[in-house]
Amino acid sequence: MKHFTRIADLGVNGVAAVLDQAQAWKRQAPGAHLAGKLLGMVFFNPSLRTRASFEAAMLRGGGNAIVLEVGSGVWKLEDRNGAVMDGDRPEHIKEAIPVLGRYVDALAVRTFGALMDDDADAADPVMSAFRELAGVPVISMESAREHPCQGLADLLTVRERFGGTQKLPVTLTWAPHIKPLPKAVPHSFLLTAAAGGCEVRVVHPPGFELHPAVLAEAQHYARQSGGAVRVTHDRQDALSGSRAVYAKAWGPATAGVAAGEAAARIAAHKDWLVTGDTLARAAGDAIFLHCLPVRRNVEVADEVLDGAASRVIDEAENRFHVQRVLLDKLLEGTAC
Amino acid sequence: MKHFTRIADLGVNGVAAVLDQAQAWKRQAPGAHLAGKLLGMVFFNPSLRTRASFEAAMLRGGGNAIVLEVGSGVWKLEDRNGAVMDGDRPEHIKEAIPVLGRYVDALAVRTFGALMDDDADAADPVMSAFRELAGVPVISMESAREHPCQGLADLLTVRERFGGTQKLPVTLTWAPHIKPLPKAVPHSFLLTAAAGGCEVRVVHPPGFELHPAVLAEAQHYARQSGGAVRVTHDRQDALSGSRAVYAKAWGPATAGVAAGEAAARIAAHKDWLVTGDTLARAAGDAIFLHCLPVRRNVEVADEVLDGAASRVIDEAENRFHVQRVLLDKLLEGTAC
Amino acid sequence: MKHFTRIADLGVNGVAAVLDQAQAWKRQAPGAHLAGKLLGMVFFNPSLRTRASFEAAMLRGGGNAIVLEVGSGVWKLEDRNGAVMDGDRPEHIKEAIPVLGRYVDALAVRTFGALMDDDADAADPVMSAFRELAGVPVISMESAREHPCQGLADLLTVRERFGGTQKLPVTLTWAPHIKPLPKAVPHSFLLTAAAGGCEVRVVHPPGFELHPAVLAEAQHYARQSGGAVRVTHDRQDALSGSRAVYAKAWGPATAGVAAGEAAARIAAHKDWLVTGDTLARAAGDAIFLHCLPVRRNVEVADEVLDGAASRVIDEAENRFHVQRVLLDKLLEGTAC
Repeated sequence: MKHFTRIADLGVNGVAAVLDQAQAWKRQAPGAHLAGKLLGMVFFNPSLRTRASFEAAMLRGGGNAIVLEVGSGVWKLEDRNGAVMDGDRPEHIKEAIPVLGRYVDALAVRTFGALMDDDADAADPVMSAFRELAGVPVISMESAREHPCQGLADLLTVRERFGGTQKLPVTLTWAPHIKPLPKAVPHSFLLTAAAGGCEVRVVHPPGFELHPAVLAEAQHYARQSGGAVRVTHDRQDALSGSRAVYAKAWGPATAGVAAGEAAARIAAHKDWLVTGDTLARAAGDAIFLHCLPVRRNVEVADEVLDGAASRVIDEAENRFHVQRVLLDKLLEGTAC
Repeated sequence: MKHFTRIADLGVNGVAAVLDQAQAWKRQAPGAHLAGKLLGMVFFNPSLRTRASFEAAMLRGGGNAIVLEVGSGVWKLEDRNGAVMDGDRPEHIKEAIPVLGRYVDALAVRTFGALMDDDADAADPVMSAFRELAGVPVISMESAREHPCQGLADLLTVRERFGGTQKLPVTLTWAPHIKPLPKAVPHSFLLTAAAGGCEVRVVHPPGFELHPAVLAEAQHYARQSGGAVRVTHDRQDALSGSRAVYAKAWGPATAGVAAGEAAARIAAHKDWLVTGDTLARAAGDAIFLHCLPVRRNVEVADEVLDGAASRVIDEAENRFHVQRVLLDKLLEGTAC
Repeated sequence: MKHFTRIADLGVNGVAAVLDQAQAWKRQAPGAHLAGKLLGMVFFNPSLRTRASFEAAMLRGGGNAIVLEVGSGVWKLEDRNGAVMDGDRPEHIKEAIPVLGRYVDALAVRTFGALMDDDADAADPVMSAFRELAGVPVISMESAREHPCQGLADLLTVRERFGGTQKLPVTLTWAPHIKPLPKAVPHSFLLTAAAGGCEVRVVHPPGFELHPAVLAEAQHYARQSGGAVRVTHDRQDALSGSRAVYAKAWGPATAGVAAGEAAARIAAHKDWLVTGDTLARAAGDAIFLHCLPVRRNVEVADEVLDGAASRVIDEAENRFHVQRVLLDKLLEGTAC
């Protein structure tokens, strides 16, 4: 059973192969390569961009998608073994997942971390259960640990601008927000850029560390790809000569920080807002990236998003292009 | 106008014919038998399993489905004649139903009983209005009175295991829950099993009777099919020699029991939890069935659901197979 | 870039051409004229009828639709330039709209007015932003200012009954409701009927004026089409000899009337309920129209809706027929 829920499912060579194919299909679309294929899309958290890009990839490929919105906590799945299910979770994943797998050719799943325990989120319990129980291939639309389709779209955008990513200095910079956010997106940019051979600089205030297991995995990819990963708290150092500046808000590293306390810790670093001055510290031809949605003038200033360096709309479009390739592989489409 | 909202729409011979076709199509799929057909799916109550299996049946058959989620009480339909509509129900079924019927080739409807009056629920007012007003064929995705597609999937699962269902002893056993549930599912297993010639035993605590009109209908089918229907409060008697044990929670029989009082009556019978010991009282080769979702260790113990006798995942898959046949009949597909 | 979000996008000749084509395709359907086309449907407000009729038009034409329900205020879009986005609107239209435009061939949008300022609603800010930023053709599924597909369906219904609409006396009458409603629907009937050459009479209580810019636009069309537009407070005058009576509730004209005060002003005119007596004042062969949903016996009496003059179900069906034509034009289908 093939799955794609983390960059580790592709590895360094797999990442390159997906991007090669995605670039080729941007020039010439693959036609009805997914004819007769049915994707089940399960959302534990709402989505607009992910929903539209995945569904478009299936429909434009001649396939179909069923969209199942579990909703904002309305219908909850129990995942504890041996639970006496007398609470607010009317169904166990042991039934829900294999049943859905009987109706479709693959399952796409979006689930967020609980943001209570970094190690628990990095262990990715809901996505792991889908891999184990689905009976069909599983693809991630973002989970507690990673958002790998986003990472691939990010790297494709960098590659399109500069022709390649080998030894390219890129910066992932923490940004402020009104509340703590999951780490899946920064994890995935880090992993994908490292796999792509970039010289990755991660910069954030002290106390906002990414998960150590993900950092170690990124270092592993960098050794294979000829890239590098460096973590710093010094923005000047992180930005100097960088060709791509990726801004993203995420919550404190410490497990189980109360939401109010976490928001206060974030608010102490409002000056990390990414402005024109920030971008000016990078290389003269640097591009700006963000996964969206972005809170303007909280995370990133208007002048950056509306400026010539921004590639955020192209980056969002690239979600479609990389997902089309991944779905073809998972569903054994006729094009690959 | 053909409709399928109750087992009475098929009768004894019709039930057998649907199951024959479903078994044949499990071996060899019918291809694009629903090409050009459009199903409107109207949910007054949310669903995951029913939604996915119906939509998959349309899409895999080359047709399409429009999913309309009326939502959890957000948008309500008035059904009283002569009402002055100054309350929270902004549209009358006299407009809503025929309008939807103009856009699609058939309507699939899910609506639950109000659980206030057993006779009102058994009269199935919303589903009856759809039959009368839709102008196109109507299929039930569960209503106040019956869940006939579930019943057919149940019986198909029994038939697949034992080759046939004639004179086969099967048991429908009441199970505990945290709140009163509708009777549509037990009604449909009872009716379908009776139509299939089973020797049906229904067992529940006193005060949890199924609706007398449904029991009478089941007796009628049993006389035609050579089966039998027996109701008892004695679990040992109901289980002895039984080849299929169907567990399901449902609410008290009495009309209009307050929710708190109903929950208390259910709680008095927590020992009806279906365990390995329960199953051991049935035949040695008995299978276990449940429509899902199931509250583990409240309705049914882990050891049963995770044990070798459980067929609950196959049973859920069979929803797809019987619905594919029914949709072909209703929509006059090319396969039938 | 072609768009269709207001009658002005068609003009007098365009309205006639759409209705000609719609009538032709009611007799002979155009087949898979939208094959390979993908429509993104974005709902800022819920819908059942509009949703079903648009999706049916795409699917029956061989195309596909992605339905994105922004929901009832759950996910809000910021549209103010320079906003510091630290509130409840996590994404700016400057990102959301162009991103969606990258995944689909056209965008259909439903958004309502804020009902706080008539001039702001008539300026149609959200729909204008979609036109500017989408990068693909945009079609309105109702906006703050107009509901043009409804207007075309209305006029098609009149034309089908009487063969033509030139010089035909038609009446748009205000009706009571339990709360203030937007003016998009009455605006669109007025504009479309004027473009169709009707002799339009608009009648409402003092204080419920339609927007002056829309009235002026309707006068402009009437001069081109040979029709006429007249506004009155005298129901007898408005109904006398009229061949089509269109009932619709809408809110007071004054900007920013508090909801409670607006409801009180509406309640003062409960006697504007459209009854059999109302209809009897029109021509003997007059038909009755309403866009639906309708509050029976608040806006319109049962005797009218259930009577022989009512065309409200045909009118709703005609939404499908006019939208099929408009989508073919916008998406450059194979039929036009």
